[in-house]
Amino acid sequence: MNAVVIVAGGSGRRAGGPLPKQYITIGGKAIVLHTIDCFFRFDPDIRVILVLAPGHEDHWKKVSTGYDRSDEVILAKGGETRSRSVRNGLIYVEDGWIVGIHDAVRPFVSPETIGRCYRAAEESGSGIPVVEMDQSVRMIGPEHGSASLDRSRLRRVQTPQVFRSELIRKAYQNAGDQSYTDDASVYEALYGNVGLVEGNIENIKITTRVDLQLAQLLLQEGDVQRGRYSG
Amino acid sequence: MNAVVIVAGGSGRRAGGPLPKQYITIGGKAIVLHTIDCFFRFDPDIRVILVLAPGHEDHWKKVSTGYDRSDEVILAKGGETRSRSVRNGLIYVEDGWIVGIHDAVRPFVSPETIGRCYRAAEESGSGIPVVEMDQSVRMIGPEHGSASLDRSRLRRVQTPQVFRSELIRKAYQNAGDQSYTDDASVYEALYGNVGLVEGNIENIKITTRVDLQLAQLLLQEGDVQRGRYSG
Repeated sequence: MNAVVIVAGGSGRRAGGPLPKQYITIGGKAIVLHTIDCFFRFDPDIRVILVLAPGHEDHWKKVSTGYDRSDEVILAKGGETRSRSVRNGLIYVEDGWIVGIHDAVRPFVSPETIGRCYRAAEESGSGIPVVEMDQSVRMIGPEHGSASLDRSRLRRVQTPQVFRSELIRKAYQNAGDQSYTDDASVYEALYGNVGLVEGNIENIKITTRVDLQLAQLLLQEGDVQRGRYSG
Repeated sequence: MNAVVIVAGGSGRRAGGPLPKQYITIGGKAIVLHTIDCFFRFDPDIRVILVLAPGHEDHWKKVSTGYDRSDEVILAKGGETRSRSVRNGLIYVEDGWIVGIHDAVRPFVSPETIGRCYRAAEESGSGIPVVEMDQSVRMIGPEHGSASLDRSRLRRVQTPQVFRSELIRKAYQNAGDQSYTDDASVYEALYGNVGLVEGNIENIKITTRVDLQLAQLLLQEGDVQRGRYSG
């Protein structure tokens, strides 16, 4: 059985305007619904758990009115931190399942990326989508100065980050209140390694107002759905 | 005296279409002209050296017709590699100058970013614009596996990368035919460290077709910010 915890906990103020970005409509549908549909397309029987930030219930009610699968979406309460939100979502997932954790504001994850992640998790415990680094990167030294990193060895990390449910649950218990950059790092802290699979470059995280405009372009063109997008 | 070597050596085929991306028109003007104007705005007396890829002379002639400062742009020949192109551009720069090396397809570098880079180079020998990392990053291990990097210590590197001219020239001589990720790394290989300054996040490198669409959005936004659009 597959499940996905979609984290929509952020207030999303960075996108500008009063409406959190996951509830903004692009192509006639709220971003969060685009995102959910990606997973229903992957597996019509997937359990979808949507973690709502406190106070966002009305936003959800509004955008999901008329959405034909809203009854199949389980709502979970968002916490103070992202980590707390993920844990709240994992409550609705049973042991022995494969569970993805995905950003509500990544509506352009491809079916191929989702499939690769879930397959890898089933086979090895975890599957994380990554894409090549498209720019030069430096690391700031602990004291001062910086060093250029070998770009060919760097990967940008996306979501869904997919795991065997009992493994990621245990990893979160192990993590306690420590802060991690993402779910893969929580998993890695306990198990030492995560499985990397190929993501898709249009799987952007819609954070800023410019991201939002880019998202509208991507959607209008329909290139994402038709697979015509080429880097 | 300030100079800038603008590298337009790439064939830019990734942007789609037959026209290299630096010659594509956005907002009524070729991208490369937007880029050049950023530097003339910073210093009306700057020496601008444009390195053209072999066979691109006609593209330049076409987009620069009617451009009021085209006579002030020195054309240099692009080489087989980016490194060779930069060296060819540096021929037109004298010792004791401050020289920036900039991508032709970065037309959104801000005046503040340019100023910070040239000031840092004057004071310390080098000035490289960087911005915070906006996503999780992993490094692939030498054998297998990967490790999450501390995002707070990572910086994305932009251009212009600015140096005291005699220092970067010597660094390139020292580099020989070795391959480096960027000019900062060439400099660093000889002098051990580079000066980092704050870049600006709109200073994107227009590489893909989606970047190009984003560029058009950014240009409209810039116009809005400058009060040229009332809608």
